[in-house]
Amino acid sequence: RDVPGQEVTDDGEALKGLFANEPVRDPALVVRSEFPCNAETPITALDQQTTPNPKFFVRNHLPVPDIKSGAYRLTVDGPSGSLSLSLPDLKEKFEKVSVAVTLQCAGNRRKEMHEVKPVNGLQWEQGAIGTAVWSGVRLRDVLKEMGYAPSEEIKHVQFHGAEGYGASIPIDKAVSATGDVILAYEMNGEDLPVDHGAPLRVVVPGHVAARSVKWVDRISLSDEESESHWQRKDYKGFSPSKNNVSEEDYEKATSIQELPVQSAIVSPAKNEVVDASSSVVPVTGYAVSGGGRGIVRVDVSGDGGRTWTDATLHRPNQSPSASWAWTIWEARVPVPKKGDKMEIVCKAIDESYNSQPEGMQGIWNVRGVLVNAWHKVAIKIHRKETDE
Amino acid sequence: RDVPGQEVTDDGEALKGLFANEPVRDPALVVRSEFPCNAETPITALDQQTTPNPKFFVRNHLPVPDIKSGAYRLTVDGPSGSLSLSLPDLKEKFEKVSVAVTLQCAGNRRKEMHEVKPVNGLQWEQGAIGTAVWSGVRLRDVLKEMGYAPSEEIKHVQFHGAEGYGASIPIDKAVSATGDVILAYEMNGEDLPVDHGAPLRVVVPGHVAARSVKWVDRISLSDEESESHWQRKDYKGFSPSKNNVSEEDYEKATSIQELPVQSAIVSPAKNEVVDASSSVVPVTGYAVSGGGRGIVRVDVSGDGGRTWTDATLHRPNQSPSASWAWTIWEARVPVPKKGDKMEIVCKAIDESYNSQPEGMQGIWNVRGVLVNAWHKVAIKIHRKETDE
Ligand SMILES: [Mo]
Ligand SMILES: [Mo]
Repeated sequence: RDVPGQEVTDDGEALKGLFANEPVRDPALVVRSEFPCNAETPITALDQQTTPNPKFFVRNHLPVPDIKSGAYRLTVDGPSGSLSLSLPDLKEKFEKVSVAVTLQCAGNRRKEMHEVKPVNGLQWEQGAIGTAVWSGVRLRDVLKEMGYAPSEEIKHVQFHGAEGYGASIPIDKAVSATGDVILAYEMNGEDLPVDHGAPLRVVVPGHVAARSVKWVDRISLSDEESESHWQRKDYKGFSPSKNNVSEEDYEKATSIQELPVQSAIVSPAKNEVVDASSSVVPVTGYAVSGGGRGIVRVDVSGDGGRTWTDATLHRPNQSPSASWAWTIWEARVPVPKKGDKMEIVCKAIDESYNSQPEGMQGIWNVRGVLVNAWHKVAIKIHRKETDE
Repeated sequence: RDVPGQEVTDDGEALKGLFANEPVRDPALVVRSEFPCNAETPITALDQQTTPNPKFFVRNHLPVPDIKSGAYRLTVDGPSGSLSLSLPDLKEKFEKVSVAVTLQCAGNRRKEMHEVKPVNGLQWEQGAIGTAVWSGVRLRDVLKEMGYAPSEEIKHVQFHGAEGYGASIPIDKAVSATGDVILAYEMNGEDLPVDHGAPLRVVVPGHVAARSVKWVDRISLSDEESESHWQRKDYKGFSPSKNNVSEEDYEKATSIQELPVQSAIVSPAKNEVVDASSSVVPVTGYAVSGGGRGIVRVDVSGDGGRTWTDATLHRPNQSPSASWAWTIWEARVPVPKKGDKMEIVCKAIDESYNSQPEGMQGIWNVRGVLVNAWHKVAIKIHRKETDE
């Protein structure tokens, strides 16, 4: 078993003790690392509007913390006041709201980038993403209760997780009436599962999932971004020409917040065989963009990108500029008249007409984040000999 | 002279009469059509933070209208009231604000797309773009004065130009406290020039220039987009596989509002010659994205995109999420050790980590709009024979 350190030290058993609070997990999750748990949504669950809780991808940076639910308090600190709230306080004092939000790991689809030229990090395929209806309270209501008032000194809202993780978002997003940032205690109508941050998780719609801090126990206001490793030394993008990233590079680069436009094919799977007697292959997938920008078109090709079919879009029931949940799409792509294989490709266009880059050349980065090149799946065509 | 209809009819002189109000124009403008005037900013003015008024690109859809400044009135209509305002009324009743905004034509860089596969429209190079400091009044202040209140029936703000042009924007953008939509009567500290919409022009920061209606004389609220040709049957994006666009295609497609991330090289010019004894070529250009998303990085290559140099960015003095004005950039790109030519390439990344597509294959569209592939400029290297 893959306990950190166990191959090079004798600390295996001791380290394992740190992971005493890991929940039982659905065996259908595709595990990329066990300690800490990093596991992706099984591909077959990726073309549903909401992802079932047990199959929702898990991206934990550290061991799951031990939170005794009765003792849990959320501390909220600002220059003008502070709050200490139990979970019942949160539920009683603030309006309950629900928002359908897609969360996507910055490293989603990293494996495809790695195959072009090696990058660092977990080898995610296209399942480090999922969509749930999150219920809880508005972050801005909690900040208001604390006495928040706009000020030159408040530029970021920092979140601390009970397990030691940390991240921040710009104050404008946090307090925006249309930003829909919530502190969630339910996921798809159930109590928030342990792996998704019980009892309370930040959900930042339209931003990289790394800012939706799980097990949040402290929220503070600052003129600076979170000082956590993951805000300062991770989750940033770099030029394709940087094979090593220095401290200075990290300081200069911009933290990933809103994500670029993305799409991926869910079905058919790689190497699936279609019969040449079918005139079309049904193709399904997901598409989503950052900042709530809705998906306006998905183009699907059966010939590697020479010709394109418009997909039918199942857009979320959300406004074009607050489309926090993905668009599931389907298309019927013609089977070529000749040959024994075909390459299916998809690419999406968002409300701002941003599009996905063709390949990895221009977006390759040594951290392997922000992988949104056209998604390609090669499948096989079975022909009777008389068809050829 | 290029008067519409004159080659196929005898109406040339009569048609010319429609163009009686055209102003005298700077001979440095690069004219793409004369009646109506469509002319781009000379390339040498494109790496300045603001574009001088006489050199600012002109994209007129119809003849310049005859507006007697004393008689000018702006009518503002909504379900809850209406206003009729003279220019002095606007100046006296509302706070004056100034915003630096880049306006870009949807067809900027169309010529490059046309060279890959023909498209319809004016053959713009990279100069159908410019940046000015626009001064005037906030649209939301004027709407408030008229009695605007949010309602399910109000989804769009429609603008009518005195010459017959029309367009609309979503109400959320129009009334947003951070949207910065203004009705401008000054441009770079001078009275608004005739070609840019005197006495009053809408300026919609972060959106395609086609929504910044010139010579605006009527503003109305509606549950529908503007019914103008340019809102309904133009300025929309389509799949690369559509060689003809039907009425139904136009109805289904989304109007261009916010633009995707863009950048272009300003200097050196195509076919310029550098001496091999120089170790680097200085390169300058512009970069801008839609929706106020600031530019976080510009990558510049001297070898067609194999290796990249980070450009030095001159960002506007605007917040990362309200970066309405372009970022002028400069880079020093190494001259290759061999060969007699080099291909300079640039691409920009915005705050949401959207990037530009490598080529035209995936973004080609029959209208030739939204051209934001990597910009490439081939230059020559002069070597003494002994250098080879
Ligand atoms: Mo992530
Ligand atoms: Mo335009």
